[in-house]
Amino acid sequence: MTMTTTAPDTLELIPGGVTTPREFRASGISAGIKATGLDLALLVSDRLATAAAVFTTNHAQAAPVLISRDHLALSGGTVRAIIVNSGCANACTGEPGMRAGRDMASETAGLVGCPVEQVLVASTGVIGVLLPIDKIRRALPRAVDALGPDEGPAAARAIMTTDPFPKEAAARFSIDGRDVTIGGMAKGSGMIEPTMATMLAFITTDAEVPQPLLDRALRAAVDDTFNAITVDGECSTNDCVMIAANGASGAVVSEASFERFSRALASVCLRLAIGIVRGGEGATKLITVNVTGAASPQDARRAAKAIANSLLVKTAVHGGDPNWGRLVAVAGRAGVAFDLNRAAVTIGSTVLFREGCPHDEAAPEAAAHLQNDEVVMTVDLGSGDASSTVWTCDLSAEYVRINADYRT
Amino acid sequence: MTMTTTAPDTLELIPGGVTTPREFRASGISAGIKATGLDLALLVSDRLATAAAVFTTNHAQAAPVLISRDHLALSGGTVRAIIVNSGCANACTGEPGMRAGRDMASETAGLVGCPVEQVLVASTGVIGVLLPIDKIRRALPRAVDALGPDEGPAAARAIMTTDPFPKEAAARFSIDGRDVTIGGMAKGSGMIEPTMATMLAFITTDAEVPQPLLDRALRAAVDDTFNAITVDGECSTNDCVMIAANGASGAVVSEASFERFSRALASVCLRLAIGIVRGGEGATKLITVNVTGAASPQDARRAAKAIANSLLVKTAVHGGDPNWGRLVAVAGRAGVAFDLNRAAVTIGSTVLFREGCPHDEAAPEAAAHLQNDEVVMTVDLGSGDASSTVWTCDLSAEYVRINADYRT
Repeated sequence: MTMTTTAPDTLELIPGGVTTPREFRASGISAGIKATGLDLALLVSDRLATAAAVFTTNHAQAAPVLISRDHLALSGGTVRAIIVNSGCANACTGEPGMRAGRDMASETAGLVGCPVEQVLVASTGVIGVLLPIDKIRRALPRAVDALGPDEGPAAARAIMTTDPFPKEAAARFSIDGRDVTIGGMAKGSGMIEPTMATMLAFITTDAEVPQPLLDRALRAAVDDTFNAITVDGECSTNDCVMIAANGASGAVVSEASFERFSRALASVCLRLAIGIVRGGEGATKLITVNVTGAASPQDARRAAKAIANSLLVKTAVHGGDPNWGRLVAVAGRAGVAFDLNRAAVTIGSTVLFREGCPHDEAAPEAAAHLQNDEVVMTVDLGSGDASSTVWTCDLSAEYVRINADYRT
Repeated sequence: MTMTTTAPDTLELIPGGVTTPREFRASGISAGIKATGLDLALLVSDRLATAAAVFTTNHAQAAPVLISRDHLALSGGTVRAIIVNSGCANACTGEPGMRAGRDMASETAGLVGCPVEQVLVASTGVIGVLLPIDKIRRALPRAVDALGPDEGPAAARAIMTTDPFPKEAAARFSIDGRDVTIGGMAKGSGMIEPTMATMLAFITTDAEVPQPLLDRALRAAVDDTFNAITVDGECSTNDCVMIAANGASGAVVSEASFERFSRALASVCLRLAIGIVRGGEGATKLITVNVTGAASPQDARRAAKAIANSLLVKTAVHGGDPNWGRLVAVAGRAGVAFDLNRAAVTIGSTVLFREGCPHDEAAPEAAAHLQNDEVVMTVDLGSGDASSTVWTCDLSAEYVRINADYRT
């Protein structure tokens, strides 16, 4: 009998964030956009990096989304700096909003010393409020002065709005014997914040990654991580995930090492995405929704999203109620292939419904599982072999209080 | 200058319910299915009536839905009796549930004196609990004894689960000089009730209506009323709307009078549907969502439903916050044609967003409008001429408490 050897490409999740990869510096300062706290984050790569980004599919796209998309095209997918403010989304602000966003980019470019199209911008905060460009202009020199290789945590705090905690993650692995690091930071979370509308994530890596591979890896990673979470089913005007790869490690990602890079990137994205769900407003539990037995991957994802967004499911979990009937009902109306007589519902490891009939006798075990901070629910649609996993949080009265009481 | 004459077919909404049309009798009694209160409703037409019904599109269809659909086909669209219980949905109960439901129909048929296929059945209550057929069998003779032409209100109470009040409506108009009455009762509401899953509505009329016309009129009326309300976006395992037309008025609905009949039917359905929204759990406000400027009626309905189901919109209204940014963001992610620079948002009669820019200066007037019990919001998608209206309620912490705290 032979032992299997440890894979030489072991992926290691490590403490860290956007400045953990080599030759990235960051800063997080207060520009006075929010009433208190850090609200301006600057991220700089000391060498020209390839860049890719995924933007919101909302038809109401904020000025920073339009500007960053434009810059990525003009720069041929390269970046030197990313400037992000919290406290104002600069969305639905018309031509004045576009001018302010462009000014934020050009002021940053001047200070960093790069062409304006090598600067990406992002904003998060109240919709319909014009970016206070004068405050940003005054603050930018301080942001540049504060840049440092250990300031990733400050940057992660500066992009927060009402997030209860900053979200950072990093992973290390090797390509051709060279250590490669990927780091990231994110803020939450769907549209859970009062009047706010933004999930933002920024990823760095010191691998050298040709732009088409970087773009492909980012889209794949986002699909199974950031696109697989939901707090309240909303898609904002400002959502974006950006990645910069500066090559400082000397390692080059090729088709041969693409899978390994993609896996590491996905692991960083997943950790950030789950952090967003954990930080969902009013959230007390992380819910993993598995859908199996689907006719197609699309069906699986659609059913999982429907379950994860169901108010009745989210409130049942909040109340610790192993209410499998709600899961059946949502799966049945999700618009996917569903066979009631082959379907099954499992909460934790307890099967509560199978072959068209209740198995309520084990409900106490399922109820006990729901007392955990992390709960797992699996719905088998009884219609095929495809599956999907989505992460969400419970819905509490605190969510309603926060979102109803804001601004008035 | 000539005066316009009053239309001879004036439609009059009148007090009343399912026994207001001639030769319908009803009863509502306690069969002991629920811990307390009325839980068994019987509705009988003294003469054979044509019938039509619209059932849930959920793939997890409850036994009573399958049985009633079957009976309607077997009877050629005729009905003598409808038997309804609350306190148990008889959904996800497998073959035992089918047997219990069929027994409920055949016991009723025996007592009323009609073929079993002329009995329709409906159930509402907890999913996954088998119908207690012994209790129903014991209670049915009392339900028959209690039948009367003034017992519509008792029947309307007996179909309630956690509804805060019964929903009844009636309308009177004339066809060829004969008075025609339409009456109805409903219970709420989407899937707002704890573990419950059912919107039920039962409509009667003493017009004689050929089955194909009755079916067409019902589908059209439901589409603009019951299908245009949402409390929490759920579609249950048991939803149904049934109508019986017994011809006791002597008036016959033909193609010539079809429009008039349809309008009266829609007015009764709308009043019942709005009653369901008003009775939504935790609801404090009725919200009318108008979408205009849509590229198609489908787009208009889809955007209106997305807005009406948005937690952020519902919580903003609950908090009295004229948060137009949330309306723009939802319209933009609703998957419909949307032009940010031509779109507009109006709350009450106050335009808050137009031509891509905020008009926040009038926000206090919009905030004042949101203090009303009935609020109106209009979103112009800036993309065409189609429109749609959807009704919903606000989302309060009370909703979460009710749905989280049940059963545990």
